[in-house]
Amino acid sequence: MPVRLGDLARYIGATLHGDEGCLVANIATLDTAEAGDVSFLFDRRYRNFLKFTAASAVILHPAELSACPVAALVTADPYLAYARASSLLSPPPAFDAGIHTSACIAPTASVDASAHVGAFAVVEEGARIGSRAFIGPGCIIGRAVRIGDHSCLSARVTVISGASIGQRCLIHPGAVIGADGFGLARDQGVWMKIPQNASVRIGDDVEIGANTTIDRGTFKDTVIEDGVKLDNLIQIGHNVRIGAHTAIAGCVGVSGSTRIGKRCMIGGGAGIAGHIEIADDVVIKGAASVTKSIPVAGVYSSVWPAREDKEWRRKVARFNRLDKEMIQRRNGARSGVNARNEGESL
Amino acid sequence: MPVRLGDLARYIGATLHGDEGCLVANIATLDTAEAGDVSFLFDRRYRNFLKFTAASAVILHPAELSACPVAALVTADPYLAYARASSLLSPPPAFDAGIHTSACIAPTASVDASAHVGAFAVVEEGARIGSRAFIGPGCIIGRAVRIGDHSCLSARVTVISGASIGQRCLIHPGAVIGADGFGLARDQGVWMKIPQNASVRIGDDVEIGANTTIDRGTFKDTVIEDGVKLDNLIQIGHNVRIGAHTAIAGCVGVSGSTRIGKRCMIGGGAGIAGHIEIADDVVIKGAASVTKSIPVAGVYSSVWPAREDKEWRRKVARFNRLDKEMIQRRNGARSGVNARNEGESL
Amino acid sequence: MPVRLGDLARYIGATLHGDEGCLVANIATLDTAEAGDVSFLFDRRYRNFLKFTAASAVILHPAELSACPVAALVTADPYLAYARASSLLSPPPAFDAGIHTSACIAPTASVDASAHVGAFAVVEEGARIGSRAFIGPGCIIGRAVRIGDHSCLSARVTVISGASIGQRCLIHPGAVIGADGFGLARDQGVWMKIPQNASVRIGDDVEIGANTTIDRGTFKDTVIEDGVKLDNLIQIGHNVRIGAHTAIAGCVGVSGSTRIGKRCMIGGGAGIAGHIEIADDVVIKGAASVTKSIPVAGVYSSVWPAREDKEWRRKVARFNRLDKEMIQRRNGARSGVNARNEGESL
Repeated sequence: MPVRLGDLARYIGATLHGDEGCLVANIATLDTAEAGDVSFLFDRRYRNFLKFTAASAVILHPAELSACPVAALVTADPYLAYARASSLLSPPPAFDAGIHTSACIAPTASVDASAHVGAFAVVEEGARIGSRAFIGPGCIIGRAVRIGDHSCLSARVTVISGASIGQRCLIHPGAVIGADGFGLARDQGVWMKIPQNASVRIGDDVEIGANTTIDRGTFKDTVIEDGVKLDNLIQIGHNVRIGAHTAIAGCVGVSGSTRIGKRCMIGGGAGIAGHIEIADDVVIKGAASVTKSIPVAGVYSSVWPAREDKEWRRKVARFNRLDKEMIQRRNGARSGVNARNEGESL
Repeated sequence: MPVRLGDLARYIGATLHGDEGCLVANIATLDTAEAGDVSFLFDRRYRNFLKFTAASAVILHPAELSACPVAALVTADPYLAYARASSLLSPPPAFDAGIHTSACIAPTASVDASAHVGAFAVVEEGARIGSRAFIGPGCIIGRAVRIGDHSCLSARVTVISGASIGQRCLIHPGAVIGADGFGLARDQGVWMKIPQNASVRIGDDVEIGANTTIDRGTFKDTVIEDGVKLDNLIQIGHNVRIGAHTAIAGCVGVSGSTRIGKRCMIGGGAGIAGHIEIADDVVIKGAASVTKSIPVAGVYSSVWPAREDKEWRRKVARFNRLDKEMIQRRNGARSGVNARNEGESL
Repeated sequence: MPVRLGDLARYIGATLHGDEGCLVANIATLDTAEAGDVSFLFDRRYRNFLKFTAASAVILHPAELSACPVAALVTADPYLAYARASSLLSPPPAFDAGIHTSACIAPTASVDASAHVGAFAVVEEGARIGSRAFIGPGCIIGRAVRIGDHSCLSARVTVISGASIGQRCLIHPGAVIGADGFGLARDQGVWMKIPQNASVRIGDDVEIGANTTIDRGTFKDTVIEDGVKLDNLIQIGHNVRIGAHTAIAGCVGVSGSTRIGKRCMIGGGAGIAGHIEIADDVVIKGAASVTKSIPVAGVYSSVWPAREDKEWRRKVARFNRLDKEMIQRRNGARSGVNARNEGESL
């Protein structure tokens, strides 16, 4: 669906230097763009491609304007403007309303007439699927689950009884929402399971990555607030609450009963201990281990950057001897003092 | 199903201070409990809620008895007593026996008449499903797999040919049991696959979390002994053996051919190297990397707690200069000695 | 299918010491092998089993030949020879061509007549399934996806629209190929999704483990080159390229837009930052965090081996005081000098 450059400029909040009426239909990188495409420049490494681009227009920073050989959409934040242009030009694919003949819908479930339910999907008793929701093939929607309007469960998503998903959510294949939390009590060396009676509540505009798991709560629901973005292979423990607009990269684990604030950013592979609180606007770098509460916004880390292995092992060995060396040095210093004293006493 | 307090006290091993005949039907936290609920106090942070609780009875430690405004179930281990009460009052939901019309059962498979097989489940040739077993929607039970009595595969669990699951197991969605181990040999820079001919044997009373994977063995089965509890997103490599009543939290990886003892506890995000042995009763803290065998029970760790990023980077840089500093100091000390010697020789 | 020892020796590249015509049909460990089995010895720990083995023949190193009580297949690389023998004697199970009656195949999809499509599999519009391909039960093959000849998607694999899989690939249950990459732009504290318009291209002879996820690219396809082997629960971000014959163990995360070279080996639980380049033939040890490009082949690490917890915590505390101590020592040394100077000036 082609868009006039003038309209695009207004939509993305940029100033147009060029023909208002020129039509663009796709977004493409500087080197691959053709006439009719809009391109973008926010990463300086691609600067050299600008002068050769065949795009009809380029989204860029004022500092790059003079070097732009085609129409320019100028803005102080070209990355954000690019994101807006891309989401305008690449909307999610349309789908047909209706329930696939192979889907299995319980008699007491309610599926909005405008929703789509795919092949081999299961919608259990009392579940409710909102308007224009997309339930892809192989999804399992448990008893009394609610799926909000315009939410998309792309394929093979499992949502377990009682969980609720807000509006405009996007959930990728393999995600499991509402499995039991890991609650155990020890009885003479044998583990006794603690029933997980609460569920999961997911806000609006949440994205959940492939094979990510979000456990149901014990007494209180696990809560994912509005606008949270979760990447793939993330584990969210029971009773956790994640504040609005927090983004978490892949392979992160959040242990049970922890609260994470709003607008936090958590890097890939980080681990967050249970029963702690993390303030709003905290940034946790990849691979960090958060072992206690973080009450103040800021950037936190504990990553050890990889090094050549022999050097690394020497360093670790040195570290492991540090205690001994410190003690020896202290003792050595003391015996030095003694020697001097003794010398003086001679 | 309401229970008399007297019966509940006996069941959980507590001493009742209050009316034997009082009925309770649910378990709830101190602040949300209503008449007819039993509540509990084992975490001192919730102590202040005790005096305001509307519960009919509270499970607590003798030290808290004097402050309890309602009937009390007194025990030295209120957490365990709570777990017992909760499992009595919140049994797993009942289910109807029978095979869903959409399920696909091979002619040579055997499904006990009291078992349940859900929508779109697949039970392949020679598989055997025990009595009162629950095979949820979308599960795939491979050739010659055995599922023990009273085991529950909640939904979308894959069990690959030849694996066996014991009795009273609980397996959450997305778990994959019996996929090939990662066995490769290098042939002039190209990887050759090593067939994984053995399978997976899972004992009784085992719980396996969502999207957890347990690989089949090469020659000997991968074995998960009785009472083991595995959280979500755990990877268990081929030929591994995990001892009875060991509990492993989320996002842990156990590499191939490793043996873990009985009653171990492994924290979230830990990694265990291959071909090692871990003794019984070992505790491994979250995010630790276990690189060699642990022959003695105890608590082990290698976690670096996250710190403010600038400070952390300064510390890492300091660490990386340590070698150099140590050498310089040693050389400096030596040249100091030399200088002195030279001074003396003057 | 029994094989003559003479033929086996030629196939695996070993020298036979024994009867050319002797038939073997299975491969087994030294202690479990029976007559008609071939066994192997490459791990010195199993050396003691050699003299008691009941195998018909043993694959071993020349150094072990004199101790071998049965026919010997002698080679300088017995591990590789074992892998070859095992793959000859344990071929993947045969399967019948054809589409299961319950599978859901779009009218415009094309499935080769020699391929197999299992129960409840979905093959969407325009998808193409190659000859002798195996699409197991519950797989979802998205729009316009291509599955190459002889590839096996064992069960419940999801391949999203536009992705292509080469020939002779093996993909394990729960893998998700082609879900959206984690592309977000921040707009006044709210995340805006960046459409992920490219797809995933997987070469020939690639193995992908259970519940592993490979994201689709933003503008360029995510590429997994020929012969790459990925274990379970791995996350591959968008726009990543992994070079031919690289092997990655379980629980590894590779962040977006990173390029990994050919023939690399990456240990379990490692994390690789985004937007970096790793050279060919790099080895990254388990649990390492790679935070910047590695331009030179070699072995890299940043693992901290777990230690007894009290000792570990003392070491971490010591480390955290290092800065302070260094400063104090420097100041102390200086004040010592001052004192001496002052002393001299007295």
